[in-house]
Amino acid sequence: MAGNVFGQMFRITTWGESHGRAVGVVVDGLPAGLPFSEADIQKELDRRRPGQSEVSTPRREADRVEILSGVFEGMSTGTPVSMLVWNSDARSLAYDAIKDTPRPGHADFTYISRYGIRDHRGGGRSSARETIGRVAGGALARLLLSRFGIRIAGHVLELGGIRAKPMSFDEILENVEKTPVRCADLEVANKMIEKVTALRQEGDSAGGIVEVIAKGVPAGLGEPVFDRLDADLAKSLMSIPAVKGFEIGAGFEASHLLGSEMNDPFRMEEGKITCSSNNAGGILGGISTGLDIICRAAVKPTPSIGKVQQTIDLSARENTEITIKGRHDPTIPPRMVPVAEAMVALVLADHMLRSGFINPRTLLE
Amino acid sequence: MAGNVFGQMFRITTWGESHGRAVGVVVDGLPAGLPFSEADIQKELDRRRPGQSEVSTPRREADRVEILSGVFEGMSTGTPVSMLVWNSDARSLAYDAIKDTPRPGHADFTYISRYGIRDHRGGGRSSARETIGRVAGGALARLLLSRFGIRIAGHVLELGGIRAKPMSFDEILENVEKTPVRCADLEVANKMIEKVTALRQEGDSAGGIVEVIAKGVPAGLGEPVFDRLDADLAKSLMSIPAVKGFEIGAGFEASHLLGSEMNDPFRMEEGKITCSSNNAGGILGGISTGLDIICRAAVKPTPSIGKVQQTIDLSARENTEITIKGRHDPTIPPRMVPVAEAMVALVLADHMLRSGFINPRTLLE
Amino acid sequence: MAGNVFGQMFRITTWGESHGRAVGVVVDGLPAGLPFSEADIQKELDRRRPGQSEVSTPRREADRVEILSGVFEGMSTGTPVSMLVWNSDARSLAYDAIKDTPRPGHADFTYISRYGIRDHRGGGRSSARETIGRVAGGALARLLLSRFGIRIAGHVLELGGIRAKPMSFDEILENVEKTPVRCADLEVANKMIEKVTALRQEGDSAGGIVEVIAKGVPAGLGEPVFDRLDADLAKSLMSIPAVKGFEIGAGFEASHLLGSEMNDPFRMEEGKITCSSNNAGGILGGISTGLDIICRAAVKPTPSIGKVQQTIDLSARENTEITIKGRHDPTIPPRMVPVAEAMVALVLADHMLRSGFINPRTLLE
Amino acid sequence: MAGNVFGQMFRITTWGESHGRAVGVVVDGLPAGLPFSEADIQKELDRRRPGQSEVSTPRREADRVEILSGVFEGMSTGTPVSMLVWNSDARSLAYDAIKDTPRPGHADFTYISRYGIRDHRGGGRSSARETIGRVAGGALARLLLSRFGIRIAGHVLELGGIRAKPMSFDEILENVEKTPVRCADLEVANKMIEKVTALRQEGDSAGGIVEVIAKGVPAGLGEPVFDRLDADLAKSLMSIPAVKGFEIGAGFEASHLLGSEMNDPFRMEEGKITCSSNNAGGILGGISTGLDIICRAAVKPTPSIGKVQQTIDLSARENTEITIKGRHDPTIPPRMVPVAEAMVALVLADHMLRSGFINPRTLLE
Repeated sequence: MAGNVFGQMFRITTWGESHGRAVGVVVDGLPAGLPFSEADIQKELDRRRPGQSEVSTPRREADRVEILSGVFEGMSTGTPVSMLVWNSDARSLAYDAIKDTPRPGHADFTYISRYGIRDHRGGGRSSARETIGRVAGGALARLLLSRFGIRIAGHVLELGGIRAKPMSFDEILENVEKTPVRCADLEVANKMIEKVTALRQEGDSAGGIVEVIAKGVPAGLGEPVFDRLDADLAKSLMSIPAVKGFEIGAGFEASHLLGSEMNDPFRMEEGKITCSSNNAGGILGGISTGLDIICRAAVKPTPSIGKVQQTIDLSARENTEITIKGRHDPTIPPRMVPVAEAMVALVLADHMLRSGFINPRTLLE
Repeated sequence: MAGNVFGQMFRITTWGESHGRAVGVVVDGLPAGLPFSEADIQKELDRRRPGQSEVSTPRREADRVEILSGVFEGMSTGTPVSMLVWNSDARSLAYDAIKDTPRPGHADFTYISRYGIRDHRGGGRSSARETIGRVAGGALARLLLSRFGIRIAGHVLELGGIRAKPMSFDEILENVEKTPVRCADLEVANKMIEKVTALRQEGDSAGGIVEVIAKGVPAGLGEPVFDRLDADLAKSLMSIPAVKGFEIGAGFEASHLLGSEMNDPFRMEEGKITCSSNNAGGILGGISTGLDIICRAAVKPTPSIGKVQQTIDLSARENTEITIKGRHDPTIPPRMVPVAEAMVALVLADHMLRSGFINPRTLLE
Repeated sequence: MAGNVFGQMFRITTWGESHGRAVGVVVDGLPAGLPFSEADIQKELDRRRPGQSEVSTPRREADRVEILSGVFEGMSTGTPVSMLVWNSDARSLAYDAIKDTPRPGHADFTYISRYGIRDHRGGGRSSARETIGRVAGGALARLLLSRFGIRIAGHVLELGGIRAKPMSFDEILENVEKTPVRCADLEVANKMIEKVTALRQEGDSAGGIVEVIAKGVPAGLGEPVFDRLDADLAKSLMSIPAVKGFEIGAGFEASHLLGSEMNDPFRMEEGKITCSSNNAGGILGGISTGLDIICRAAVKPTPSIGKVQQTIDLSARENTEITIKGRHDPTIPPRMVPVAEAMVALVLADHMLRSGFINPRTLLE
Repeated sequence: MAGNVFGQMFRITTWGESHGRAVGVVVDGLPAGLPFSEADIQKELDRRRPGQSEVSTPRREADRVEILSGVFEGMSTGTPVSMLVWNSDARSLAYDAIKDTPRPGHADFTYISRYGIRDHRGGGRSSARETIGRVAGGALARLLLSRFGIRIAGHVLELGGIRAKPMSFDEILENVEKTPVRCADLEVANKMIEKVTALRQEGDSAGGIVEVIAKGVPAGLGEPVFDRLDADLAKSLMSIPAVKGFEIGAGFEASHLLGSEMNDPFRMEEGKITCSSNNAGGILGGISTGLDIICRAAVKPTPSIGKVQQTIDLSARENTEITIKGRHDPTIPPRMVPVAEAMVALVLADHMLRSGFINPRTLLE
């Protein structure tokens, strides 16, 4: 079965190619009674939009969302919400060269292996433009979660090997949009910009790490043994193009710790149950503890680089070289932040519904 | 919806608690025409069985599998295969002490938060004993895959901070069962054993990294944009108890690399398409490339340790301490190897069916 | 994907063949906090058990259910409930004759067409014995529903062309178990018995109609546009062996009515909204109205008859004849009643959870 | 979980309300390599379009489909196909009167019961306009099936109590579009038209029976025990607005037959296995036999009638009356024919993929 549907109770279906007529999403499972408008969606789309700075692709698109169904007099009705964004600035000519020469690090080769045909005007379905549907759907998930006290913040923790110092949730929220690299540590952010700018000039690119934190998630979310909350978060972030790793809480660092260091002691604080540390990242046994959920995605460097690269000619079946033209982000993490937040929001909304914390029919009771 | 079903076309449902009557699995989606017997399943179960060495729990269970349906005259019939293992050595008395004092790092607290009731005789459903169903189901997946030339090997790459040197697929296969820590680098394996033994004596525990490699996977497996092969692998490994991180190919290391270092150049070799490196770990754009699939899971140290730990009393709602008794592995990765292999096999079998590489009805054509 | 899983949030997986070792079910999605015991399940299994009267097969099995997981100190824990019944009286010798000669009206031919292999000892998976898992799972669904005021009653409305007069819900409940044909109209029941007994002596069999009524279902259940409550009920009953038709409310009769006859007028009665008729059968637009849900299944006559029948020899690929031996019900509807009730209970429990009328985590709040 | 997704491997998600901006569908699971264009979709949409005759609503809409994704150079690429139709002639003023007075036989009351809010401009999501998405998705399913020799024909078998005489598959195909009632028995068709026209003048409406036949379906399709082909067909047709009953083959008539009458004898004919009758309607044990699949839907009379009807006032919570204005079909079956065909096509395409008769990746091999 094809894999363009995500979620069980808050379920999105995304569609669209980078150089087709439009991209979009259908959200099935938004409860009735949530007030929302195109502005709520647009705000998130604007954050992922290209052409915003020197560290992102100069491709410019307005990316205006249109809501086509599921809302009546400004309120969700419980029926599917269909949203789309028209593709306007799609210069496909630049891509003709790559028809038969798969770009290293891209999905060109695997799409042709799988389907026997590929929309070679840009990445087609494998383009990051696909994530518009995720962000639009995630904006609704986020709005829904905010009604239940759940807030989500993402930021670039590391870029080109440069790592930010630890920041609080509120600092992240306050700073993250102040710099095009979306690093809340503003000093480090400047170094990241320098690094990426230098790499771009060399025709190269950088990877990094995106972290997402969710605050206010109640204890008791997650469906063992397979649909653990952390397993679903892993899938959600690993499904974003260019992500090569996922971790929760102490993550890979946990593999080096002793049990006595890793275990978070339970404590009573002001009459409430909490832990005096959060190495678990807010999840034990696949179920939320009530503490912050903290997860990270490792992002590879942009595969489109300016250097000459080795590849093959699929028709001639011989070795050749390729030089990629077109407009590309020299690094992906900054623009991935709203996408990663959207995916986390989708998973949390889905589990809030699955676990009965949100009434799936209606909020009007 | 509850989360004890895994997979779409090769679908398992597992059930059972550590101290209930039995644990088991129903496999729905095994094509007709596969010859198999209890010995095929037992072989894998024996690998995950406790009581095998000083680095694992002394709990001893025969763990004999019984196949109850889905097979006729030694061959699968296309109907569900139900398998179970009776629980025999379940000393629940040792667990009475933990009824009201959630063990740090365990799921005691989250289960009670979620369900309002918990089978406190051991981990109940959150016990590693749950993985018997996964291994039994995975054994069938593995057998099916072997018919199509796919082989899977897992090993402990790192334990207690000690890392093995790189080993080939064949070396891993040859060495991994020679040592109780399942590290194919036998010299390093001895150091790991020393480390873990020392930690056990101190009442502490160690984490590590399990790596699984799949060889012979055809190009074209995976269902973008959400059911990417790597996203499903991530979910599968992250759903195993104690796993805190996942990575594929270069993984987190990819976040430090340059694009020119990360991209795997396509090359023709002896008339076949391949890549001269495999930083991608065998997957691009969520679809297999035909190269080895290489993924890793970060495993936290065993949460059950011998030291006194801080926790709370759920009834009195006050701080208290706990000293965990009972029998426990001082480190999890060695016994996780067959479980991780099983999960990878389940994902690959599912995608081989989903992508049409295996006829879902029958192999008898 | 294979089809042995039913339901979304209250989800059962059934397994087992008529002449295998056992048959069973795993229930995933039963909320924690429901007290139950084997007696609750056994009660329903006893109703579907063969060998109860002259109108059912003389095959005798104790059909004792064993609960293997998901319950602790007499209460559901929110984890999967695995239940099985061992097969004891399975005389497979009688079936050797049918290996190569598919029985008309049975699934012998289609199973071999599909899978290329068939467990020919009896119906295998296509045997009515498969319904044990449904009834066991349905017993839990029913118990859950009863906590929310929902009661379900099934009865044989028609048998061998003889139709019962209309009976009230309470009359049905009171009378249905008083007669082996499970017809609440006791006078008509005797005529049915005569008819079926006569047909059995002629080596023939009879069909009939089973009706199921659910009382106490709240308004607002059902998930348009595809997972309408009536569509899911249709699927549930049509999935029972031998069912050839389904209808809700006025059903096929609705096709002859005028709009002015069919429409149920809404009325206020004692401050509550109701309808002065119930041609809709309790469902409008796929969503429950709060009135009784009334649905019917058309059941074909037992395909196993004593007469000589035309068929083919699959090996020789030529025409031949078959005379079926063994023990068979001369009519199916009486024994189908508990199965049909179970399927309706499964659908309603699933939708009560899907629509948020039941907390999916726990009843202990 | 919300219910706007249908199918497993050929999966559609529909969206849109009668008086919203547009209605549409996303098809996920169409294999790559199928040539198609908007004309293929438009052809089917034109058949369901209103305003075509005196027996259908005078509401006139061009209903031009736009394909937004999933196609490249005239061929499917394996990515989701998004299609929409803009709503143009949506006179919502006529509906203000019904805001608080639920129309008998309509979903007004149940939608408000469920969601607490309702788009009262016409039926909203419960309008037959919703079926545009089904027909558009079904057109692709049909096109796919035709590549594998499967043809589907629907017709009105009965209308207002008047029944057509039996017709062959080819006669149905030839005649069905010759008359606005879509009855292939052209003599009877005229009587149907007279009847319906008379009823319309009286302000009343008629029901009927729609039959759909599928030819060329291979033996071996269907997934016991729950996802039987007939169970899925039942769900598909019962999910269409106004359908109150479903039957396959002999259907309800089977309940009156003897086993010796009902069983279809297997026969060899010209070296091929067939049956000398088809009471089974092409399905045994939930799996196709290779004979024609024949199923029927009982359709209730249009609930919107011109007569004064009793209802309630939801605000005042008291009895009142309603006279429905606006434009409505006096009978539904003629326009339901293409919808029912689409649903059957969707089920068959889904099962052809699920059973491995069609490669889910690509047709280009």
